[in-house]
Amino acid sequence: MKKIYLNKNFPHFLHGGDYNPEQWIDTKEIWDEDMRLMRKANCNEMTVGVFSWSTLEPEEGKFDFSFLDEIIAKIGENGGKVVLATPTAAPPFWLAKKYPEILRFEKNGYAAPNLGSRRHKFCYTSEKYREKVAVMVKKLAERYAHNKIVVAWHLDNELYGDCFCDSCRKKFREFLKNKYKTVENLNKTYWAKWSSGEVSSFDDVQPPIAGTSYDALYIDWKRFTDYAKIDFLKFQSDIIKGVNKDAVITTNLMPQRDYDLFEYAKMLDFASIDIYPNWGRKSEIGEAIDSAWQYDYVRSIKNKPFMLMESAPGLVSWMPQNKLQRPGIGSLASISSIAHGSDSVGYFQFRKSRGACEQYHGAIVDHVGNENTRVFKEVASTGATLNKIDEVCGAITQSEVALYYDTENLWALDVVYAFAPHHVNYYSEQINYYGILWNNSINTDIINRESDFSKYKLIILPMAYMASEELQNKISDFVRGGGTVFATYMLGYTDERVLTHLGGFPGGKLKDVFGIWNEEIDSLYPEDVQKISYKGKLYDAKDYCEIIHLRGAKALADYNTDFYKDTPCFTVNEYGAGKAYYQAFRDTGEFKSDALECILQELNIKGCIASKHKGVSAQIRTDYENEYLFIENYSDGKAENIKLNDVYENLLTGEKVNNVSIGKFEYKVLKRKI
Amino acid sequence: MKKIYLNKNFPHFLHGGDYNPEQWIDTKEIWDEDMRLMRKANCNEMTVGVFSWSTLEPEEGKFDFSFLDEIIAKIGENGGKVVLATPTAAPPFWLAKKYPEILRFEKNGYAAPNLGSRRHKFCYTSEKYREKVAVMVKKLAERYAHNKIVVAWHLDNELYGDCFCDSCRKKFREFLKNKYKTVENLNKTYWAKWSSGEVSSFDDVQPPIAGTSYDALYIDWKRFTDYAKIDFLKFQSDIIKGVNKDAVITTNLMPQRDYDLFEYAKMLDFASIDIYPNWGRKSEIGEAIDSAWQYDYVRSIKNKPFMLMESAPGLVSWMPQNKLQRPGIGSLASISSIAHGSDSVGYFQFRKSRGACEQYHGAIVDHVGNENTRVFKEVASTGATLNKIDEVCGAITQSEVALYYDTENLWALDVVYAFAPHHVNYYSEQINYYGILWNNSINTDIINRESDFSKYKLIILPMAYMASEELQNKISDFVRGGGTVFATYMLGYTDERVLTHLGGFPGGKLKDVFGIWNEEIDSLYPEDVQKISYKGKLYDAKDYCEIIHLRGAKALADYNTDFYKDTPCFTVNEYGAGKAYYQAFRDTGEFKSDALECILQELNIKGCIASKHKGVSAQIRTDYENEYLFIENYSDGKAENIKLNDVYENLLTGEKVNNVSIGKFEYKVLKRKI
Amino acid sequence: MKKIYLNKNFPHFLHGGDYNPEQWIDTKEIWDEDMRLMRKANCNEMTVGVFSWSTLEPEEGKFDFSFLDEIIAKIGENGGKVVLATPTAAPPFWLAKKYPEILRFEKNGYAAPNLGSRRHKFCYTSEKYREKVAVMVKKLAERYAHNKIVVAWHLDNELYGDCFCDSCRKKFREFLKNKYKTVENLNKTYWAKWSSGEVSSFDDVQPPIAGTSYDALYIDWKRFTDYAKIDFLKFQSDIIKGVNKDAVITTNLMPQRDYDLFEYAKMLDFASIDIYPNWGRKSEIGEAIDSAWQYDYVRSIKNKPFMLMESAPGLVSWMPQNKLQRPGIGSLASISSIAHGSDSVGYFQFRKSRGACEQYHGAIVDHVGNENTRVFKEVASTGATLNKIDEVCGAITQSEVALYYDTENLWALDVVYAFAPHHVNYYSEQINYYGILWNNSINTDIINRESDFSKYKLIILPMAYMASEELQNKISDFVRGGGTVFATYMLGYTDERVLTHLGGFPGGKLKDVFGIWNEEIDSLYPEDVQKISYKGKLYDAKDYCEIIHLRGAKALADYNTDFYKDTPCFTVNEYGAGKAYYQAFRDTGEFKSDALECILQELNIKGCIASKHKGVSAQIRTDYENEYLFIENYSDGKAENIKLNDVYENLLTGEKVNNVSIGKFEYKVLKRKI
Repeated sequence: MKKIYLNKNFPHFLHGGDYNPEQWIDTKEIWDEDMRLMRKANCNEMTVGVFSWSTLEPEEGKFDFSFLDEIIAKIGENGGKVVLATPTAAPPFWLAKKYPEILRFEKNGYAAPNLGSRRHKFCYTSEKYREKVAVMVKKLAERYAHNKIVVAWHLDNELYGDCFCDSCRKKFREFLKNKYKTVENLNKTYWAKWSSGEVSSFDDVQPPIAGTSYDALYIDWKRFTDYAKIDFLKFQSDIIKGVNKDAVITTNLMPQRDYDLFEYAKMLDFASIDIYPNWGRKSEIGEAIDSAWQYDYVRSIKNKPFMLMESAPGLVSWMPQNKLQRPGIGSLASISSIAHGSDSVGYFQFRKSRGACEQYHGAIVDHVGNENTRVFKEVASTGATLNKIDEVCGAITQSEVALYYDTENLWALDVVYAFAPHHVNYYSEQINYYGILWNNSINTDIINRESDFSKYKLIILPMAYMASEELQNKISDFVRGGGTVFATYMLGYTDERVLTHLGGFPGGKLKDVFGIWNEEIDSLYPEDVQKISYKGKLYDAKDYCEIIHLRGAKALADYNTDFYKDTPCFTVNEYGAGKAYYQAFRDTGEFKSDALECILQELNIKGCIASKHKGVSAQIRTDYENEYLFIENYSDGKAENIKLNDVYENLLTGEKVNNVSIGKFEYKVLKRKI
Repeated sequence: MKKIYLNKNFPHFLHGGDYNPEQWIDTKEIWDEDMRLMRKANCNEMTVGVFSWSTLEPEEGKFDFSFLDEIIAKIGENGGKVVLATPTAAPPFWLAKKYPEILRFEKNGYAAPNLGSRRHKFCYTSEKYREKVAVMVKKLAERYAHNKIVVAWHLDNELYGDCFCDSCRKKFREFLKNKYKTVENLNKTYWAKWSSGEVSSFDDVQPPIAGTSYDALYIDWKRFTDYAKIDFLKFQSDIIKGVNKDAVITTNLMPQRDYDLFEYAKMLDFASIDIYPNWGRKSEIGEAIDSAWQYDYVRSIKNKPFMLMESAPGLVSWMPQNKLQRPGIGSLASISSIAHGSDSVGYFQFRKSRGACEQYHGAIVDHVGNENTRVFKEVASTGATLNKIDEVCGAITQSEVALYYDTENLWALDVVYAFAPHHVNYYSEQINYYGILWNNSINTDIINRESDFSKYKLIILPMAYMASEELQNKISDFVRGGGTVFATYMLGYTDERVLTHLGGFPGGKLKDVFGIWNEEIDSLYPEDVQKISYKGKLYDAKDYCEIIHLRGAKALADYNTDFYKDTPCFTVNEYGAGKAYYQAFRDTGEFKSDALECILQELNIKGCIASKHKGVSAQIRTDYENEYLFIENYSDGKAENIKLNDVYENLLTGEKVNNVSIGKFEYKVLKRKI
Repeated sequence: MKKIYLNKNFPHFLHGGDYNPEQWIDTKEIWDEDMRLMRKANCNEMTVGVFSWSTLEPEEGKFDFSFLDEIIAKIGENGGKVVLATPTAAPPFWLAKKYPEILRFEKNGYAAPNLGSRRHKFCYTSEKYREKVAVMVKKLAERYAHNKIVVAWHLDNELYGDCFCDSCRKKFREFLKNKYKTVENLNKTYWAKWSSGEVSSFDDVQPPIAGTSYDALYIDWKRFTDYAKIDFLKFQSDIIKGVNKDAVITTNLMPQRDYDLFEYAKMLDFASIDIYPNWGRKSEIGEAIDSAWQYDYVRSIKNKPFMLMESAPGLVSWMPQNKLQRPGIGSLASISSIAHGSDSVGYFQFRKSRGACEQYHGAIVDHVGNENTRVFKEVASTGATLNKIDEVCGAITQSEVALYYDTENLWALDVVYAFAPHHVNYYSEQINYYGILWNNSINTDIINRESDFSKYKLIILPMAYMASEELQNKISDFVRGGGTVFATYMLGYTDERVLTHLGGFPGGKLKDVFGIWNEEIDSLYPEDVQKISYKGKLYDAKDYCEIIHLRGAKALADYNTDFYKDTPCFTVNEYGAGKAYYQAFRDTGEFKSDALECILQELNIKGCIASKHKGVSAQIRTDYENEYLFIENYSDGKAENIKLNDVYENLLTGEKVNNVSIGKFEYKVLKRKI
């Protein structure tokens, strides 16, 4: 048996959420009521401190931790654990006012110290801010880093955005100098002879505030921004670990945003995720797939269980329409996170604010203040389930299939205007390919340019536009060694500098791996549809169609329309012991489903369940002795007669089954010995 | 007989409009032609001086009132009266150039003194501007405040917008300090512990220029802006009344904008309105209803006859499409203002400009310069009618029904992003409920949080989101005393500080008055429709559906769809001697019509006419001896066989009738003794 | 025989394009390969130097022309000619950094010297920039102005945009002072009494950065911007001609943008055009018509053959979708430019960049680097055709019909918000009327307010809103002398100051020429359609319908709907020896086609071919001995049985024909003796 826990001293699921009791510091009877409601909701965790700075240090140098002492103790007395946040995401007003140099410099100027300003107003590289942060974090660590109630430290909160202040500009130039050594190297990489743009010193380089003619500059800026934020997190982590080297460090990541999670993962003890799906619009299946991808991504970056830190109980407050979650969806989504590798279910927030900008955001405890709400009851029932399946905690995920998703590739496609940033949709296409695997209940890892390719049978590379020599080699080695790759249009146009490959696409070695030459890419208007002929059936192509030539590959499908009618559009090449498939166009879903399922069959990659049902997906976690099978139903009705691959025990009822039916928005958790 | 006149010395309708003769100062033969055309158009009023400052004071301290002397005299000689504007809405270029501190500071910086800049470029709180304004207004008052031709003073013009200059910031902080006394009170009201946002001094507070996390700050800023503008108006009024205490003061208000008209009304002798409906798009009925509401609102704020100061002859020039008014609409709309309590019909402007930004805006006299245009003739015919019905002038309006519309509530809903400012549509819903009353020809007052509730039989409160304890008491007292209220979804979520009520919605006493608990609000996507079952019929619900629980109330309708199927959505509660109805959802028009008409019947509230016709509405004015009945037809065809409640005399023809037919875009004015 | 050549020393078509070899200065084997590919592509011209400044002067005062020497020599050795650009469109980074005062001041501030900034970042009036430009241009001229390989000088590149820096403001005020003499004149012209806006000094005038209430200010600013740019071009031209007075000067103009090409033409030896149609969206016919108009316009401004400098081989990279050009379209479009008067076919660019913002823009030589691409082959085939029809070079165009297009009128309609800038569409209506002539294969000139009207039979004036007394006289003289004019709605509302005409529209003399009075203009909503009855058939009217009165004219069509039913909407007036037609509404295409074809017939104006085919158009060039007939087919299929007016010789095959068929996207070039 092998398990990996978030905190080895607490081998249990966490169930709880963000709790901001400083809002109610004048009415402490509410704190006591909250403790009662925490137990009633089957919660065992509270994330505290996220926005507490002004309460902990109301004036410069005047500290008062009594509120935190009291709350942590109360939570502990009531059987709960605490994830303790450093409050650095929201510097107090007095600090921003006294030291305006700590403030974020937005594209259009300073975020003024303003009652009306939003959070996240500080600069990641500010020396002055680090000075103040160091004091606060040191004091917190000294006071709580050995506290047994505290199971993990949450650094800052939802780090996003970038800063354009003088300090960041300076640091950016240092970063470039370190990378390029000479300004000539930078000029060549940026192709700066174009328009007489060569700079003569690193000091000439500015962040791409107002757009840029040089994609490479944009990408370097994104690289730098991640570098600066990770450095800020490390700065905090070092202080805490300096007090207790066993302190457990995390922060909440957001896979839908454009920062490079693999880079952040390197310095975290475990990864955490905040997730806010758009439930209730059309079918729930699309949201479920998107969420599942996010979970798989956050699991993959550390290759171990993660924490679901924030999700919305009931509804959010910042969408154009804040629709209520339909009964069951909240629980189902929570258990889904467990299925994909989470060892916690967290919510934002425990008690609803009375004012300010999250006044109406969903919470476990609503303004009415009691346990008689629909949302409270659903949360409590999720907690009851977690208690029953607690043995799953620490089990891991094994995948034969990997999906390539690279944030540098995302940046490159976000900025390359020839392919229309508004239509490129790298993220959506990623989800589209993932959806086929989800539909087939196949455990999947998300990998990037630095991942180990060798452990998979099949790797899918949608729109892998940026292909360095290293990546080319990885793909080549993987296929030569017997692996199967499935790549799509836009493969290997540039190297890691976003300089195009010369000599024909896909660049370098990939031309041989895939056995094709890609001459032209036709960007279609939204109203254009091309037809594809594959195995006697016609499919639609949209948006992008490449005109390719065979250089050893075999055509599996041809275009059926327009001037490239009868030229190949889906090919396979035998290369070493493996195979390389290439889909030269964007399809509308049906083609990728048929083509990929065919390949899965050929490779004998089986789903976690033995039958396929619309809106139903299954995942397996394992501790090498037991296998835990989660089956979820997001369809609009009951899923009948779901066939299992073996006999399983229902972990909630003890029943033995080889076949189950699952109601709308319901789930099963099953178990078998391996 | 009881009548209330705009100016007791001129007990007649005013018919005329804005006149800017300084544009033609080099071609004075045009002035003479204008006098001929004024008489020809049956006009008896000109509003002059609105943009005259640069002509009256071409250089600092160099005054020349000869043009104004001449024009006022000419108008008087030709039988007309003058409404004299203070020219402060458009400070001359030289003033803005010499004293840039008088300029409006927009969100993104100063409105530079610029030939290209727009009007309204001054700051309402600038000391320097007041100094210059004082001189100008004093001179005007001394010269004209006893002039018999001048029947009223029009202060400034269409005051809107806000200013973010240092002077306004300072005044804002004084306003806050005066209101909150201590900064702790402010922090608590703003719920500023959220995100460590507490300020330590009133000087820290900034206007919500770039958005804010604190709704309460936004609302205080709106309150302050009105305060500053009203103070600016009072400053002028005091000067004029200092010269002649009987001078009659007004200014032109715009009900569609978000300033608090009830507050302005307090310092005016009578209210004026500018109105620019969007005629000619689809049916005219919607525009007629919206206009009627605006008239009723402006009448209600002073509870007496008002002045229609500006409306467009023929067309406007600032819409995406400037469609011509169809024949008859201009006259009908003018008479409609009289029906709803106006004692004037005014236009912008008398003669069309040759250049600048209102070059093509409709005018009585077009560029062709003569009386042979369609528009001129229609204006002249309106004037002829006004002459015939002049005895109506000064009659007042009596209503049994009131519609609650509160500007602070508007601000709160405009800013609360959980309910999506783009879909909240407080104004539209107001008009939707008003439309049912209009369709039933029922005289209606518009009331706000400070109004006297006791004189009505029925009060309708759409989306009364903000309910202070005072408002709760008013509603409670009204119902307990036998009144009927009809409230809708979003009732009583917050108090006047926009802090949510704790303990369940609607807040405080309202839970008892309405006998319900409102647990959740479902914000629907635009494509979502829910069904309502009421008296055996199905209705549509859109946008917002609350899930409520009965606490004494009786369910009159249930939801018919989704997970809240069979829960109540329209309730009535007997409370004291009255009844409280609650509509928990937004409907699409049909439901509110059926439900309200049922209640009107029950309360025996009768329309001004005895039959109902699509697009036809009637209003009554009275002098306690005579009743004047106005019937208007906005439908696309003739309205036949309109039944009257009694025999009336046609004021235009003398005919006696108890039944009339009215052509498309035509009207009747009838009279009976009471 | 009479011919006019671009350069009298090189009486041949140019075929080639922009070439930026400094990008490959480190890999000179690519230069040699480019020479081979140039010959292979049947090219004989390269435009070099456009972006070379940083290579020619890598540091201030350090010049190195060796790269240019080498490239020009290589091109010459390989049989090519060079168009040599002054590199002033893209000042090098070091220059912008050292002298920031040379930078363009955009509406929202300086274009900082920034790696990320776009091109065209300099100020047209900067003294410092001129100083630096003078040195560079002088050196280039001294080195190459007598070089036989250089056939023309291309000044700067695609001049557009405006600058709001202090230097430009100063120059603008001088421009105004020179024009108006006194500030009173300016105030009167701007109608500045409106809103007390009179300025007291020319120094008070600011550019209309943030919009303006004064249309006349906007138009003066546009006039000034052209003046400044032309002055900048002249400054360069004078230097070059100072070295060799026979140097041939051009620059690339863009007819779709809002600058006044007729003004630029005055200082050029020949005009050049850059053209980037939106091929591949719906039918190609619309793009072909738009392109043809652009060619005719650029030919008309000098009234002689012009240079097609830039067009895209294959695709562009800056559209929302960059669709591939379908096979044949590239060649057809190239030959079309010749048909309409071009003596060159140029592309942007010869070899695709590896990086920076035009990385994926179409090029003759793609990233693959060889001649085996579809695009390369099509370019080579166009070159082969040009070689075969080289005798056409220098032939001119004769037209009986002219279409009035005036840039000042465009500015006026772009800014007059009463008619909704978004719907006014002056440019589109221009193209709509042009399309009728194109469909009928009629050679057409484009004329403006300064052109000679007397040489035409028919002049069409769509939306000639601005009509000075001079223009009124020109139209009057033309008609009185026997000409026919066809004018539309919005004729003659203002004079050249955009002050409206008084006394009725169309202004001044035009009321007599057309025999009408236009009382009102109805601006329709997008969903509105009115009907027109003309010769027993019903047509649609949209957007604008004027209500006019006959004052001598004869009604040819009436409105059939709405309140202006049965009033005239299409009229003809006999005036002197000619006729004046007036179309009072915007039609949807069918009406203008039927009405204009009727007039063409009456005037006996014949097409270049004797039959009409959808998507087929023909043009004639002549040298007074030979007539060259070009026929192009943009329809989706073969055009059969096209009847010619005579027997012609096929210039490519030698065949004699009086009837031809032309495949989809193909063309014919035919010849006959006159």
